[in-house]
Formats: sequence, structure tokens, C-alpha cells
Amino acid sequence: MLSTDLHTALQNIFPPEQLYTDPVDCYTYAYDNSKKIFPPQAVVFPLNAEEIQTVVSLCNLHKIPLVPRGRGTGTSGGSLPEQGGIVLSLERMLDIITVDPANRVIVVEPGVLNQTLQDTIKPYGFFWPPDPSSAAYCSIGGNIATGAGGPHAVKYGTTRDHVLGLKAITGQGEMIKTGCYTTKGVVGYDLTRLLIGSEGTLAVITEATLKLTALPAANAGITAYFRDLTNCTEAIVKIMSLTQLPSALEFLDAGSLNLIRHRYPDMLPPDAHAMLMIEADGTESEIQHTIVSILNACKTVGLIKAEKTGNTAELWKARKALSPLLREIAPKKINEDIVVPVTALPKFLNELTQLSHRHQLKNVNFGHAGNGNIHVNLLINPDDPDEVHRAEQCLEQIFDLVIRLNGTLSGEHGIGSEKRAFINKEIDQPTLTVMKAIKRLFDPNNILNPGKIFP
Amino acid sequence: MLSTDLHTALQNIFPPEQLYTDPVDCYTYAYDNSKKIFPPQAVVFPLNAEEIQTVVSLCNLHKIPLVPRGRGTGTSGGSLPEQGGIVLSLERMLDIITVDPANRVIVVEPGVLNQTLQDTIKPYGFFWPPDPSSAAYCSIGGNIATGAGGPHAVKYGTTRDHVLGLKAITGQGEMIKTGCYTTKGVVGYDLTRLLIGSEGTLAVITEATLKLTALPAANAGITAYFRDLTNCTEAIVKIMSLTQLPSALEFLDAGSLNLIRHRYPDMLPPDAHAMLMIEADGTESEIQHTIVSILNACKTVGLIKAEKTGNTAELWKARKALSPLLREIAPKKINEDIVVPVTALPKFLNELTQLSHRHQLKNVNFGHAGNGNIHVNLLINPDDPDEVHRAEQCLEQIFDLVIRLNGTLSGEHGIGSEKRAFINKEIDQPTLTVMKAIKRLFDPNNILNPGKIFP
Repeated sequence: MLSTDLHTALQNIFPPEQLYTDPVDCYTYAYDNSKKIFPPQAVVFPLNAEEIQTVVSLCNLHKIPLVPRGRGTGTSGGSLPEQGGIVLSLERMLDIITVDPANRVIVVEPGVLNQTLQDTIKPYGFFWPPDPSSAAYCSIGGNIATGAGGPHAVKYGTTRDHVLGLKAITGQGEMIKTGCYTTKGVVGYDLTRLLIGSEGTLAVITEATLKLTALPAANAGITAYFRDLTNCTEAIVKIMSLTQLPSALEFLDAGSLNLIRHRYPDMLPPDAHAMLMIEADGTESEIQHTIVSILNACKTVGLIKAEKTGNTAELWKARKALSPLLREIAPKKINEDIVVPVTALPKFLNELTQLSHRHQLKNVNFGHAGNGNIHVNLLINPDDPDEVHRAEQCLEQIFDLVIRLNGTLSGEHGIGSEKRAFINKEIDQPTLTVMKAIKRLFDPNNILNPGKIFP
Repeated sequence: MLSTDLHTALQNIFPPEQLYTDPVDCYTYAYDNSKKIFPPQAVVFPLNAEEIQTVVSLCNLHKIPLVPRGRGTGTSGGSLPEQGGIVLSLERMLDIITVDPANRVIVVEPGVLNQTLQDTIKPYGFFWPPDPSSAAYCSIGGNIATGAGGPHAVKYGTTRDHVLGLKAITGQGEMIKTGCYTTKGVVGYDLTRLLIGSEGTLAVITEATLKLTALPAANAGITAYFRDLTNCTEAIVKIMSLTQLPSALEFLDAGSLNLIRHRYPDMLPPDAHAMLMIEADGTESEIQHTIVSILNACKTVGLIKAEKTGNTAELWKARKALSPLLREIAPKKINEDIVVPVTALPKFLNELTQLSHRHQLKNVNFGHAGNGNIHVNLLINPDDPDEVHRAEQCLEQIFDLVIRLNGTLSGEHGIGSEKRAFINKEIDQPTLTVMKAIKRLFDPNNILNPGKIFP
């Protein structure tokens, strides 16, 4: 329960439609896509930076957890109010402050949806490259807080490559302004990228200045089906050694293909056990050249067929259907987003198969192979304690394998609460000590999303 | 003078060829391209991370300034031992640790020259985009410390876009490891980019993992000459509104052209008062398309001629000759690297002309117009106190103009000591407070490059 003092203070500032305290109203803000549930004591809906500053200052004074929230689409528990307190929902900060196509810049409030942003800048011939699968309903603030990526990161990079500057409120209620409005700028420390991916633990983002990228003139897709995993991963390595990068290079393993077959029985060749969905973009002539190179790179012993697809939209529909299909058969899947160097993918996927056999677990794996970023899904029955135990052991060994292969535990989901226990597998003690000290510096009373990232 | 204790401790660790204390030997390390002179008491040449750690720990114990130094090519005084102490020259850490073209990664020690790096990766079809004019003799460590850019930043970005991870030693002598080996990774805070551009004030970089970019298949150049400044800046804005970015877009004002005429009398049309040097890269067909668009964008009332050049090397030779030519006529030029939004360039350059008239100063301006990044050079006689005073006043007004136009004080040189007095024009007090606290966190005894960046 909120203290009466804090409750009264909030009521004095916010009208009822900006302050929820009824547990029924608050429940909607108790969970994210990690499917864990932690109800907050209150939800506040600020409409501007000053209101955010007021709430942060109040929480800092009362030492009450404040959990910033975009649209709750994260999978790592980053927006869960684990320790109770107040959820700060940025969903009503929807202003597009400046559209400046001549300088390739847009300035937005954190609640603006990724899709709204894309729709706003498309008429000017631009897009904003970060493209998580939740683009239609996730917010720019959330994208920045998690350092979101997506299929097109292989060519265009992730969120940190496409933000010029931020305004934010630290845990002490100080308004700071980071970065600049221009594409070059080296004045002072790079606080912009320090905040990107900090999962709401350092400051609340109130405004973002984003760099826009020109839409490619055209794009084209290729599908390639392989008899086995080894031949498919060989093709991935060959494609990524071409100088012209594909704009997407998505991998689907046998388990993923079976899921799609379940829904679309005639879509896939029956003997296919691995598949690549590849996109190239650029001018028409550039694409033609790239497509030829990619088709050649796909020619391995186990290739069934590789062909240009007419309609890339169809391609993405099947790929995007995977996560929901997985939820249907395994509501409690453990969904990871590990990354290994591209040349380590064959070894990683082979050892992953052995690990899941050894632990008698079903798994389904797909993802952004061009970045070496694979979504490993362990399908478990949460009511079977033995299976849950085996999954935990397997997951630990998967992470050890990833680190052994010079990879990273998370390519785009972030650490949140789900991967917190494993962060010291990747980050050594002196570096973690520096990170924790930075957390204390921005947020000395540990009110902003407390308990996240660090074990 | 070094204390006897510290001197003895250093002598016990380093052989004479790794430790200079003779003032004559030390003098070479007393200056950089800012032309100020501050002799250190000693220069240490570490050969590996452990030796760096030893020196940092000793300086931390004795509270003695330690100034990391790449090759001393910086123009902002970033590597000057202003408060005396020890210069830590990384020039002998020259190992190329891993060349991994299949993963588009190279791992290097900080002393490796930018040019050596380019030569190493070119046979594999790659380059590393940061391209300061000093590329032939500046070090990767220095590039990272300053967040270096160059002409190709308009298409490829700057140093912060091309570093995957770092190893570094903090001011307390702790070895930290930031970032990862892969192109995606969101585990923990982004310390990599916090160190990039921190000018040796937070930690000493001991190793860098760099992302490689495929060399374009081809490139082509355009030169465009204009009767006046206004028509030239109009063309800049039109070129930058094309969807296909040029790979370089360099601007030269009337003063710059006169300098070139002095050396190459017949190179330029006599009535040209502004010039653009433009480069496009990509596939042959892509370039043809881009060149047509750029030539069209150059068509303003004041265009004298715009034409494709056969030899882009010649183009760059003339452009690169500018800085040395300037030194000849004005050894004490004040050389700035301000940035304004591209659409603000016409207003900026016009007001700059008025300002220099008002203060009776000669100035020469050129630079990376595609990023809005202009090198403003005030040519002064340092022996004329009145002129020096007028230059100081003018500079202050130039910075005020830049900030009013939503620009930034430095696009690639950094703050160092030269622009330290002006940083609070751009960065507000709460944000500066956070930056200074980060400095204290990494370096509580203020030994690493003390006094730099902050006033």
C-alpha cells in the first residue's frame, strides 16, 4: 500500500484519470511479455516532462519504487514492478514535437508508437531502422530503454545507432539533456548511449531526437530450404562473407518449420529441416546483383531450393507468426535471444541440439542469423517440476556455451529480471562494479526500476 | 619533478627505453596540434595492459597526473600534460590481435595507426570508416578517445558507430571490459560509448574490438563551383535532401579557394567564391544515378560549373592541403569544428561573415558540410594583443550563434583544454554535474588527464 502522505501528494497533483490506485485498474500494469505478475500500488500517467519530474521527486523523497513503462511488450521483465511501488506509464506522452525531414531528424515524446513514427516519416521517404516484431504496438521510449533491434539490424544496426539525443529525468529528479540535434557531436560524455539499453534504471526518458534513414528504393526476398542444419549454417556464413550485406537474414530450424506446417500445411517442402528468409534492399540494379550473390552462397550440398520470392510481405507474415504459434503450443516457453559470432553459429546450433537431447527438452530456434542472434525457445510444462529443473540446467549450459563462443547473453531483449542471475557469466566483477556505481550515481535511493539488470 | 619514491618505483619496473625523465627527451611529448607546450616530468611507454595498470595504480597511489597519449595529433589540447605529471604514450602498443574478416571484426592495441588498420583489412575488402585527415599517422586509441570523424562521416558515421567493445583501465587501476564481439548486444550499460570521446579522462584504452565495413565497389567525385556563398549553401541543403547520401560533401569558402589558388594558380575558375567537393560511392549503376541527382541539386542561379571529376585522389589532395596551407599563412590560427543542422548552414555562414567583418578578422572556413560540420579558422597574429582580444570576442559570439542554431561546439576535435571554457554554453548544469560525477566515479583522485573537458 502507498503511504497516505504519498497518496495524498499524488492526488493533489493528478486528476483521477491520471492516477490509478484501484487494484483492478492497476492489474493491467502488473505484467509484461515475460508473463510474470507483480501488481503495482499505483499507476501514474504523466502528460509532460514536468509531471514526470514531480513523480520522480516524490518517489525519491518517499523512497518508493518507480517503474517506467512503455507498452509492456518486453520479454525480460524489464517493466515489471517486482518490488511494488508505482508504475509510470508513458503511454499518454504521444506528441510528435518536430518533424524535420530536411535535417533527417524527428523529435518525439516517449509514448509514440514505433509504427506511428514510421507512418509519420514514410511520406518524406524515411524510416527509423529499429524494427522489433512488436513495432505496431511498442513505444519509442521502450525501444530506447531496451536498445531494441529487429531483423533489419544486420544492415542498419540497432536503436543506439539511430538516436541523436535525449531528455531525461534522473532518479534524483534532475532534468538532463544528452547528445545533440546534429549527426556529429563530441561535446562531453556520451550519456545518450549510456541511457539507451539501461532499462529504466538510470533515468526516465521524456523526449528523444531520432536520426532518420532514407527508405530503400526497393527490396526483394529470397527463401532457401535446406535438408539439414549444417548446410543451412554453412550458407549463413557464406552469405555474411559477401561484401553487400542483406537487409535481413532470418533463420528457422526444423522445430520452427514444423510449427508453420501445422498452420500452413502446404507452404514448405516436406524434406526441409532448416530455412533462411533473406531480404536485400537498395536500387533495383543493386538488388539484382545482391540476389545473384546470395543465391550462389546458398548452394550447399543440402540445399533443396533457393528462389526469389515475389512478395516479401508474405515472407514476414510467416516469420512473424512464429512467436504467437509457439505461445499456443507452449505457453510457458523460455525465450532467449543469445548472440554468437556468425562463424560460431554452426557450432552453437549443433551443441544446442545435443544439450536439448541430453536434458530431454523440446526446443525451437529461429532468429536474426545475420547478427548471430538466435531466439532459443525451450518449451516446458510449468506444472512438471522435473522438466522445469532440467530446463534451468540446460539454460545455464546454453549461456556457458554462448560465452565460450565469444557471444553475448542478449542481443535485443535486455536483462530485466529474467536474465539477471546470469549477467556475471558475461560481465566481470570490476566492470559490474562500475555499472552498479553508475546506477547509484543516477539514482542514489534506488527508486528507478529497482532490482533490475544486476543480481 | 617526480617524487623520488615514484621515480624509483617506475625505474624498478621499466627499463630506460620505456621511461623518459630527461627534460630533452620529455619535450617531444609536451605538445600536440593545439601548439601549446606543457612538458611532462616523465614519459612512460607501456607494452601491454598489465604495464598500463601498474602505471595507473602508481599514479593513483601518488596522486600524480597521468595523461594518455596516442600520436599527439589532436587540435584541442586533449593530450597536453597541462598540470605536469606523466605522459603515458601508447605508441608502442602496436599489436593487431585478431583479424577476423568472416565476422567483420578486428581487435587491435591502441597504438595501431588508423592507416595500418586500413592497410590490414583492405585485402579482405573492408575499411574502418573513421577518417580524420591525420589518418596516416594518428592512432586508433586516439581516434576512440576523441570520437574522431572525417569527410566520410556523412554516410558512414563516426568512431562511436564502429567500435564493438573495449578493454580499459580506470583511474583506480581496475581493468574493465566493455561491449562485446558481436554486432548486437544489450547486456548491462553501454560503457563502450561512454569511453568513446571521453578524451582519456575516465580510463586508458588497452584494446579495441572494431566493426569493419565493406569497401564500396567504386566511387566517383564531383566538383561544383559557385559565384557566391548563398548559392553554394542552397546546393548543400538540396544535396542533403536527396535520399541517397553522398559519401562525402566538403565545402570550401572564398578564403579557402584563395589559399588553393596561391599554391595551384590555374586549378580553380577565377570567379568562384565557394566550392563543393562531393563523392558518391556504391555500385557503378548506383553511383551513376546518384551523380545525376547531385548534379541536378547543384543547379542554382550562382552555379559556375559542376562536373564529374576523373580522379577523386586529386580532389582529396587539394582538400587535404588546406590545413597545412593555412598554417603557412597563419601559424596561430584558431581552428574550430562547430556543427549546425544542415538547413542552418546558410544562416550560419552568412552571420559568420558579418561577425568577422565586425571584429575585423580574417577567417577561412571549410569542412564537412554534409554533417553541418564547419572548420572555422580565425587567422590571427598572436603578437597583436588587440587582434587576439577581438578574436576571443568573435569566437564567443560564434559559439553563441552555433548554440542558437541548435548546433554543437565540436563535431570531431573534442573539448580538451581549448574549448573547456565554453562547454557550459552547450551543456546545462544538471547534465554537467552528472558528467563530473561520472569522472569522479572512474577516477576518484583525478589523475587521468586532469583538468580536461570541464571548466
